[in-house]
Amino acid sequence: MARKPETFREKHNIDVRTRHEVIGIDTDARKVQVRDLEAKKEFWEPYDQLMIATGARPIRPPIDGIDAGGILDVNTLGQGIHFKKVMDESAPKKAVVVGGGYIGLEMAEALKMRGLDVSLVEMAAQVMGTLDPDMGEQVSDALMEDGVHLYRKETVKGFDVDNGQVRGVVTDQRTLPADIVVLGLGVGPNSGLAKDAAIPVGVKDGIKVNELQQTETDGVWSAGDCVQTHHIVSRRPFYVALGTVANKQGRVAGINLGGGYATFPGAVGTAITKYMETECSRTGLSEREIDALGWQYAVGKIDAATLPHYYPGSAPITVKVLAEKGSGKLLGAQIVGGKGSAKRIDVAATALHAGFTLDEMLYLDLSYAPPFAGVWDPMVIAARKALKGI
Amino acid sequence: MARKPETFREKHNIDVRTRHEVIGIDTDARKVQVRDLEAKKEFWEPYDQLMIATGARPIRPPIDGIDAGGILDVNTLGQGIHFKKVMDESAPKKAVVVGGGYIGLEMAEALKMRGLDVSLVEMAAQVMGTLDPDMGEQVSDALMEDGVHLYRKETVKGFDVDNGQVRGVVTDQRTLPADIVVLGLGVGPNSGLAKDAAIPVGVKDGIKVNELQQTETDGVWSAGDCVQTHHIVSRRPFYVALGTVANKQGRVAGINLGGGYATFPGAVGTAITKYMETECSRTGLSEREIDALGWQYAVGKIDAATLPHYYPGSAPITVKVLAEKGSGKLLGAQIVGGKGSAKRIDVAATALHAGFTLDEMLYLDLSYAPPFAGVWDPMVIAARKALKGI
Repeated sequence: MARKPETFREKHNIDVRTRHEVIGIDTDARKVQVRDLEAKKEFWEPYDQLMIATGARPIRPPIDGIDAGGILDVNTLGQGIHFKKVMDESAPKKAVVVGGGYIGLEMAEALKMRGLDVSLVEMAAQVMGTLDPDMGEQVSDALMEDGVHLYRKETVKGFDVDNGQVRGVVTDQRTLPADIVVLGLGVGPNSGLAKDAAIPVGVKDGIKVNELQQTETDGVWSAGDCVQTHHIVSRRPFYVALGTVANKQGRVAGINLGGGYATFPGAVGTAITKYMETECSRTGLSEREIDALGWQYAVGKIDAATLPHYYPGSAPITVKVLAEKGSGKLLGAQIVGGKGSAKRIDVAATALHAGFTLDEMLYLDLSYAPPFAGVWDPMVIAARKALKGI
Repeated sequence: MARKPETFREKHNIDVRTRHEVIGIDTDARKVQVRDLEAKKEFWEPYDQLMIATGARPIRPPIDGIDAGGILDVNTLGQGIHFKKVMDESAPKKAVVVGGGYIGLEMAEALKMRGLDVSLVEMAAQVMGTLDPDMGEQVSDALMEDGVHLYRKETVKGFDVDNGQVRGVVTDQRTLPADIVVLGLGVGPNSGLAKDAAIPVGVKDGIKVNELQQTETDGVWSAGDCVQTHHIVSRRPFYVALGTVANKQGRVAGINLGGGYATFPGAVGTAITKYMETECSRTGLSEREIDALGWQYAVGKIDAATLPHYYPGSAPITVKVLAEKGSGKLLGAQIVGGKGSAKRIDVAATALHAGFTLDEMLYLDLSYAPPFAGVWDPMVIAARKALKGI
């Protein structure tokens, strides 16, 4: 008989304790207070090095009725399984999604594909607040064209609850009937444990870490959605809760904890999502973010097509490029378009890592053949337009 | 009545003479010898600045019978129209494509889609000679799986011709029956006119130009498929006949000729094509090109998927990364895969422009969401593998 393959845990002699929760950290004595959730007892455990990887927690504003049945979070795997159970058992007809960011859009898409009548409530003027409003408007349009009832510049004030079950979402404008409500209001760092232990936190209470993923407290490391991250373009810390950044930071922390050496250079704020066939992506700084820094910038924006006009399967693509006045340094880029458009943001993300100016963007040797792109990449044409404002 | 819009030619008072051919250049006297193809007379025309944009000409080896009817070039628009006419009028059943490069692959695809029985003869061990053989083999496999009769390591020795019409292709191994034959043997610079005028030429007789697109002869400029190009990675001139490079060089020449100032930094050798659903792309240097420079390199290669395994529509993707020993500097990358794989080469092309090392590749903030990619980009995983050999 074949031997069962050795698990990572066995091979490295890792003591994994499930159903245990860390409830306190004593950074002077280098020990953590642990609660055994099954035996219901607490004890202190010593450490040489401590890694905090507590991730993010969803933002849940203290609105009356928010804990009613049918108001669903989509943060953990368990919540996903619960969501599916609710869908199967109560066969809801009307869904209200609160928040038009990445999670809100993905949930609106999933619920629409399952045949529900979907409303989406967004506080801002447009969905996808990480895009500039002119780009976000294109995504708003895509939602409405697909039959999503979109309510912008509306704030959720409460919930109609009947017998512990949600029946409607009350905004400052109207009441929307709802069999289920999905909360997509973003996440924040789950850093309460660190804060309580006086481990310094920064932006939005993200744990402060250096390039090695060391916190400012001796022997304590952190990585992922619970830390603040260095933004390569703004050269300031920011908060980003994305799997790509978390994974890279985790790798760096692991190498250093294991006695190796690695540094995390920071991120440029790249993100991507889609609603049905409408894709959108962004990297670097948005107009709002540049304004907040007090920097001046030029804009280049172009409506083009993913493929040459004569080639079948072409889709619209709008590319917007932002660059610093004077230096011409690329500051950010955004894409909204049809199938095959959004992933092209990676060229701009790589250019931001390189610190390229618009001039350097112009002559990038990007791949061209009619089934894939036009001779002049829309990103390059947008860069050329932005150059006029430098 | 609306006035007919002014043409570019009218607006800028450009004297365009069609049906005229330049047959000689006197660079000392600064004049060109012109043949009026209609009046059938010749005359000399003076110039202050001369721009040579004669492009490429297809390679046609002096094989017996190569001028027979049914042996088709696909270089000019006129040849394309002629090709279509032959297809419509003689309804050929069997096609032989000679050469397995970009044009050979595209023509094999087009003819297969029109229902012809297609054979392809390639001198080398694999099609797509700009890829490394291990990557090219995957493209060869895709052709054969789709029913293309592929003959590798075979050389065309002649043609069976009957009554002025091709009937077969004779290789060093066999005779392949053919109603039509397509030549896809590559192109070379159409630089005879420049050479005759003693304008210096370099690699493969490509006209030598500097960053401003000036030739080494006073008052003579050149750009596009007739010139040699600076390779940013090898730091040596090379010959590349691609629309993207030609367009960029033309823009630089035009700006300088118009009294402005622009420089062309060179190219990194990016190219892309597909056969049906199998896409391939490359950038930078191949193993053969690195060997020719005498440089040493490490290889990282990974078989992955375009999307996370649980997401529908995922396709296989093989990424190969080449990097310099010691420095870890990225030297090249190649991709072969299914739908949505090949255009990702642009990240590597941009990284080559930036002169990135593998270490710098590892932490690129590339876009991630399940409909678009996995958390770790296959290009980054391949870079991580290559790092082990540095």
